Amino acid sequence: MTQRFSFELTATDGRARTGVISTPRGEIRTPAFMPVGTAGTVKAMLPENVRATGADILLGNTYHLMLRPTAERVARLGGLHRFMNWDRPILTDSGGFQVMSLADLRKLSEEGVTFRSHIDGSKHHLSPERSMEIQRLLGSDIVMAFDECPALPATEEAVAQSMRLSMRWARRSREAFGDRPGHALFGIMQGGVTRDLREESAAALREIGFEGYAIGGLAVGEGQEAMFGVLDYAPGFLPEDRPRYLMGVGKPDDIVGAVERGVDMMDCVLPSRSGRTGQAWTRRGQVNIKNARHMDDPRPLDEACSCPACRSYSRAYLHHVFRAQEIIASMLLTWHNLHYYQELMQGLRTAIAAGRLGEFVAAFHAARAEGDIEPL
Amino acid sequence: MTQRFSFELTATDGRARTGVISTPRGEIRTPAFMPVGTAGTVKAMLPENVRATGADILLGNTYHLMLRPTAERVARLGGLHRFMNWDRPILTDSGGFQVMSLADLRKLSEEGVTFRSHIDGSKHHLSPERSMEIQRLLGSDIVMAFDECPALPATEEAVAQSMRLSMRWARRSREAFGDRPGHALFGIMQGGVTRDLREESAAALREIGFEGYAIGGLAVGEGQEAMFGVLDYAPGFLPEDRPRYLMGVGKPDDIVGAVERGVDMMDCVLPSRSGRTGQAWTRRGQVNIKNARHMDDPRPLDEACSCPACRSYSRAYLHHVFRAQEIIASMLLTWHNLHYYQELMQGLRTAIAAGRLGEFVAAFHAARAEGDIEPL
Repeated sequence: MTQRFSFELTATDGRARTGVISTPRGEIRTPAFMPVGTAGTVKAMLPENVRATGADILLGNTYHLMLRPTAERVARLGGLHRFMNWDRPILTDSGGFQVMSLADLRKLSEEGVTFRSHIDGSKHHLSPERSMEIQRLLGSDIVMAFDECPALPATEEAVAQSMRLSMRWARRSREAFGDRPGHALFGIMQGGVTRDLREESAAALREIGFEGYAIGGLAVGEGQEAMFGVLDYAPGFLPEDRPRYLMGVGKPDDIVGAVERGVDMMDCVLPSRSGRTGQAWTRRGQVNIKNARHMDDPRPLDEACSCPACRSYSRAYLHHVFRAQEIIASMLLTWHNLHYYQELMQGLRTAIAAGRLGEFVAAFHAARAEGDIEPL
Repeated sequence: MTQRFSFELTATDGRARTGVISTPRGEIRTPAFMPVGTAGTVKAMLPENVRATGADILLGNTYHLMLRPTAERVARLGGLHRFMNWDRPILTDSGGFQVMSLADLRKLSEEGVTFRSHIDGSKHHLSPERSMEIQRLLGSDIVMAFDECPALPATEEAVAQSMRLSMRWARRSREAFGDRPGHALFGIMQGGVTRDLREESAAALREIGFEGYAIGGLAVGEGQEAMFGVLDYAPGFLPEDRPRYLMGVGKPDDIVGAVERGVDMMDCVLPSRSGRTGQAWTRRGQVNIKNARHMDDPRPLDEACSCPACRSYSRAYLHHVFRAQEIIASMLLTWHNLHYYQELMQGLRTAIAAGRLGEFVAAFHAARAEGDIEPL
């Protein structure tokens, strides 16, 4: 196994790419979907079962982990991999996005941000330097630069100011990250939906130099059309030979559209969160297992799916345990959704390698257009 | 595999017994502990993992299943085994106990009992005949006779009246059960803590004749001393050559004491319920994982335990995920508790077979007397 972090592109099809990220903790096949293990667990899943769905890498959240159990405690306990029993690569975000979306009483300055915990109201501080320290204590393999995300809606001027602050923070992140062989630091492009700002941000990041580049500030309510609009040009501003990570995306059709536009990595809570709210994702679209139409249905969610939920249980059972608020409903639906997402990624990788992405995408949309199987 | 239900005693040690119940769906090694899968799931566990802990048989609850998803629906879907993905033996209770403890507005007559659902207030009826029908629709391997449990505290006269009603219902249950090769009907001894009533009840049941005999009306708040007092004589009133099932028991030391007194089968929600409330059972007693002493503890719950929670996670992790209300806390602690219970049963079976139960029980109590490992 390699002792350094590297990325090899093995095939392209149009703007879409497939390849392999190598790390000392294992390979990440791209395009990759990263399940989210917010607070040291992918909710309702054992890590060996997350791996069994085909996940090569998990995402952990700096904001949640710094508050509880704290980065220092995780470090004393041997790091996040050991703590949560996942020995493959972990990417941690920088905390910037969650501070914006979850914390109370934020106070922003050039230096960083102070805020109060949403758990107990305690006061905390994040800066590029502290975020790098926390992510080092957690032991993450892919570290994200600390950035600021403006609350939407925002004027173009506010987006520009915020992006330039994030670029100054990106440089401080790079300096604070230091020399850590086998670990990677990714910069995060900002600039909202404004092409000039995206280009300026990308240029600033390339000037600093990172092992990978994220596209931030999307999937925050702008809608798929606006997001794809940015993805039509933004990946092209980034170096060809480094992985491109679209943060917080998304629904299956968002993922397919992003991969078509040259994205290599994504993460989203959607498959696991949906599992806990009774939503399943299949080749034929979304299934609401709460719906009474499933009450007597002996068929699996998707007869072509090989996940445990589809292999061994009827829609009627899944409906029953969801309605009865049984934990197994979250366990089985989350497993199914993560399995479906990873199967989709494998399909995309195979199609790109074969130069048949167009056919794959057409079949993907055709199956969804059919909709769910007819009620019995 | 056998096509009939049978019980073979293979060894005894004092009053304790070990043996095998054979059914068309597999063998049940006794003494057996049956995890409770109330509404079609052992909470927070996948059935294959319940099996991996060593469970030979599960218990399902007639009361819960008749209300939701209904016995008729389960039958249309192929029976409870298929519905919940458990192909080994299932014992169902008769519904009598839960009607007493959970339902609203009960109305009792010689014929049976009407009540309102605790879920939606809908009106339902149970009688010996309807309970037999429901348990047949569910497809359970071991069917329990329909009985009445008096609310405690009760006068001896009330306990006697209730027991005699249950004995008349036991006869009606036997008649309604019919001829079902491979399936068993168990009668339930009642009579509270009064020896004469227990003897009268046992005689009535033996006169009717059952494939097995349960001891009901214990573990309902009378305390361990009173329960053991009854178990000092009650099993002796029952036929030697049929399994004896103590309903709703219990804590590990209750189980050991019951096995010493000649009990072959038990069930209890305790290991799974405790798992969801942060209580773990180990060789050294009870561990409250919520306690702050575990916050920095890198050691497993029990270093000698081979369950996934102990093999791969620290007390600090279990503490963290419990405090963060993560589903994995319920999953891992339930798994550990069920594993511990089954390991205890295997220890009891092996000790009885070797004629060394006394030593085993002494070591069991000695380890518990030591208490949990010292904090770091």
